[in-house]
Amino acid sequence: MGTHAPDMQRAAEWLAARLRLCGPLVAELWPTQGHPAVYAEWLGAPGAPTILVYGHYDVQPPEPLDRWKTLPFAPTVIGERVYGRGVSDDKGPLLIAVQVADAYFAATGGLPVNVKFLFEGEEELGSVHLPALVAAQAGRLAADFVLSADGGMWSAEIPSLTVSARGLAALEFTVRGPAKDLHSGRHGGSLQNPLHAIAELVASLHTPDGRVAVDGFYDGVTERGSAERQATARLPFSDAGYLAQTGAPEVFGEAGYSTLERQWDRPTLELNGLWGGYTAEGSKTVLPAEAHAKLTCRLVAGQEPGRIPGLIEAHLSRHLPPGVTLDVRPGEHGARAYRIPEGHVGRRVAGEVLEQVYGVAPLEVGMGGSIPVLETFQQLLGLDTVFFSFAVGDEDIHAPNEFFRLPRIAQGHQAWARYWARLAEVGRATALQHG
Amino acid sequence: MGTHAPDMQRAAEWLAARLRLCGPLVAELWPTQGHPAVYAEWLGAPGAPTILVYGHYDVQPPEPLDRWKTLPFAPTVIGERVYGRGVSDDKGPLLIAVQVADAYFAATGGLPVNVKFLFEGEEELGSVHLPALVAAQAGRLAADFVLSADGGMWSAEIPSLTVSARGLAALEFTVRGPAKDLHSGRHGGSLQNPLHAIAELVASLHTPDGRVAVDGFYDGVTERGSAERQATARLPFSDAGYLAQTGAPEVFGEAGYSTLERQWDRPTLELNGLWGGYTAEGSKTVLPAEAHAKLTCRLVAGQEPGRIPGLIEAHLSRHLPPGVTLDVRPGEHGARAYRIPEGHVGRRVAGEVLEQVYGVAPLEVGMGGSIPVLETFQQLLGLDTVFFSFAVGDEDIHAPNEFFRLPRIAQGHQAWARYWARLAEVGRATALQHG
Repeated sequence: MGTHAPDMQRAAEWLAARLRLCGPLVAELWPTQGHPAVYAEWLGAPGAPTILVYGHYDVQPPEPLDRWKTLPFAPTVIGERVYGRGVSDDKGPLLIAVQVADAYFAATGGLPVNVKFLFEGEEELGSVHLPALVAAQAGRLAADFVLSADGGMWSAEIPSLTVSARGLAALEFTVRGPAKDLHSGRHGGSLQNPLHAIAELVASLHTPDGRVAVDGFYDGVTERGSAERQATARLPFSDAGYLAQTGAPEVFGEAGYSTLERQWDRPTLELNGLWGGYTAEGSKTVLPAEAHAKLTCRLVAGQEPGRIPGLIEAHLSRHLPPGVTLDVRPGEHGARAYRIPEGHVGRRVAGEVLEQVYGVAPLEVGMGGSIPVLETFQQLLGLDTVFFSFAVGDEDIHAPNEFFRLPRIAQGHQAWARYWARLAEVGRATALQHG
Repeated sequence: MGTHAPDMQRAAEWLAARLRLCGPLVAELWPTQGHPAVYAEWLGAPGAPTILVYGHYDVQPPEPLDRWKTLPFAPTVIGERVYGRGVSDDKGPLLIAVQVADAYFAATGGLPVNVKFLFEGEEELGSVHLPALVAAQAGRLAADFVLSADGGMWSAEIPSLTVSARGLAALEFTVRGPAKDLHSGRHGGSLQNPLHAIAELVASLHTPDGRVAVDGFYDGVTERGSAERQATARLPFSDAGYLAQTGAPEVFGEAGYSTLERQWDRPTLELNGLWGGYTAEGSKTVLPAEAHAKLTCRLVAGQEPGRIPGLIEAHLSRHLPPGVTLDVRPGEHGARAYRIPEGHVGRRVAGEVLEQVYGVAPLEVGMGGSIPVLETFQQLLGLDTVFFSFAVGDEDIHAPNEFFRLPRIAQGHQAWARYWARLAEVGRATALQHG
């Protein structure tokens, strides 16, 4: 649980206290083997649908601290943005849902539908302890579907509805040579350098045309149909705009696919960290004992997260250069890819509401990232998940200077309020039953 | 000069004060554009040879601190060893020469030969400011040859005389992709990852059989003669013993050469540091903006240090993967390889003295490392250098838990005392003149 467990406990208690300020809402901390989840419910609308609102109060590490222009844990408003770690992912979007409940209670004394809130504290750790908690609390978590305050739209100008997410598998590995750091003058050239070896291994993981070179990695992956590919191609997206936004010199990825297809529909293997030897100012002539790498894969339908680390480990073992040993540690992260069914009532209501708020029908888009809980809710509760976050994908989540757009808060309030009201109408019409 | 300039100044002042404790020795701090050098001289033996004793009081950074068993800057005796940063490279060997001068003054009121001490403070920075200092002080530094307290023998049991050293060239480079760290879920697969790109670049620098793959790198390098190769092969060295000492699983290097040839007679290109992305505990799904590498080459006769960084930069540019940019910074380090002439009087005296102290003739060996001042002394003063250090190559220099063997101090005292006495006899016989 690392050194921030007391901070996480304080954050959970703050969130529970905030929920208890919402009229008659009952809020509880649900302990886990890791950080606690925060649960609250209001079930005063008999006969109306019941939704399970999901979000997370934990955040990514703020490092590198020297790249922040404001203090990461002192939210700072500059112009129409608030800056701080977690403001976009996912504390801001989560609070929108809480504030809408607060407003409904204040204005009408109740909510149009039954609402259960489940805010976890380990999403950025792969929601490792959530499945056990959801399984244990399956009775109390029963609902018609999940409405997720986590996710995000792809632009601030045009509303979008995320209908798919990639899955996740993670791995760390270490290459070891000599038992201790050696002088590269004396020993250089006569022993394998772990930095050379790890570079060879990392380079071996992709082909020059951007495909993952691990045997079996693409097993089970199917091509999307041409109609779907054309729909993606029609979205208002340009590589030029994308490069302007990211500052990268050119796009690069698996040959034969567009940038959006590479982000949404194709699996990836990405190094997240690579290090060894002397990395501080100046020069140190060392042949280091070890070199390290962290990587994550994004998965699509047909790929089994539990199988991927083994495939990569086999690849690394097979490509290990002479003179070093290999230690592979599968990460705790793991999630299948997800896609919400066409015609799902929650998806339909989301589309209607977004069109009302923004005056234009939302685009249906994919998500390159992963939300491991999607699988948990589907497997353990039988529930689909509708993404309904008002974060935007360019808000530097997981990076320095994360921000959230202030106008999106008011838009989010409107949308969540309308969503619950509209769902109550639809629910009465179609006699949705609790899951 | 970094943040340790005041510490370096204190170290220089301590050393000058220690020299002034030696009878009539005059000691001065010689400022440079970097850290000061410490100079002392005694010229009270007219007609006798004059030697220039070289050493350095600066040390390598102590990192990684968590690998030290004792405090790196609190020398600690455990058994027959003293542990601490710099005790073997080069503070211990340097102090031996000072203590011998002290003893001579106390016992006889003078030294057998004229002695000039030059102890610099930037050897670990490639002696970058020494050439300017030596050029400016060439008159005062005039001598017959240099006797170096830096260097080291290859084993504690059998005396050895180092007759060659490899040269040095250094380089750093950075690979840049997006303008800032991005979320690897959203962006992974659609932009080049700088960690992938730098791994490809590093992997491209060697062939699978251990040769440097940079065009022109071996230009001017000649094979040693078969008699010399046989002499090296006869040295009491085994790969098994070397692996036991280093803890490496197997030897690895350029095909067609023995381990000692790889260390002494063949040039190398070694990564000293490689880093980018998230390197702390846990997982962070980042596609980093940058990745970095530091490397040094060890050079042999025929290679020009100033030419090597350009060859490597050309190689890196030619092998740069798509989607990233490259920034190459040549290091300030640079030194030609060196070999002391056969029959040099200082080399001959060293052989005699070591045989007297150890009862066995010393082995003549090479040195994988580099001492940039060798070139400075040869070019600017016309002086050859005799290595006469009592450090041993296994004393974890440049690494955690550097140590120096206490019995070597007494052996060093005997050897330095005999050296000066014997040189005085030889000098009278052969009428050596000041350089």
